[in-house]
Amino acid sequence: MTTTARAALQNEDERVRVTRWDFEPQESTGRHVHEHDYVVVPVTDGQTDVITPDGTVTTSQLRAGQSYARPAGGEHEVVNTGCPADLHRDRTEVTAPEVNKIH
Amino acid sequence: MTTTARAALQNEDERVRVTRWDFEPQESTGRHVHEHDYVVVPVTDGQTDVITPDGTVTTSQLRAGQSYARPAGGEHEVVNTGCPADLHRDRTEVTAPEVNKIH
Repeated sequence: MTTTARAALQNEDERVRVTRWDFEPQESTGRHVHEHDYVVVPVTDGQTDVITPDGTVTTSQLRAGQSYARPAGGEHEVVNTGCPADLHRDRTEVTAPEVNKIH
Repeated sequence: MTTTARAALQNEDERVRVTRWDFEPQESTGRHVHEHDYVVVPVTDGQTDVITPDGTVTTSQLRAGQSYARPAGGEHEVVNTGCPADLHRDRTEVTAPEVNKIH
């Protein structure tokens, strides 16, 4: 799937880069490789499917304010699967700044 | 003011430490010095007063998902001044994971 979620650079210095991702229902990051360790801070509750290149789908429940850290190297796409796309969008958007540890 | 807000360590490795701060109305971090550069990701809208040792008060409006970065060295306390303490707490709690750049 191509990138349909919106990415906005919020901050960048020599050590970290902070990118805010906003997903409307069914929007996707597109497939990507994480070049750096990273921390994600969900700002909304939500549900995402993480799809790896071999087709494995892992469904994750996001809770606002419950951050998580992941190592570099992961290749996947992330899709907002909180509910069908035709339901009310306010309850299913996902917002999640991601802090990349550049150095 | 002493520390009344709640701090919860969410993640720590050799490069970053992620601490979630929850503030009910009028709660404070207590005075502290930032030993590391840091990024704050507000998960709620809110208002804080940042009080430096010389008594200067700077009022900040927080927006959910609008992260900000600050350098090490700052000394201050942060108080949730979103509204008087006797108003409904659900609208005035502040939640903000803080990512410290240790190395």
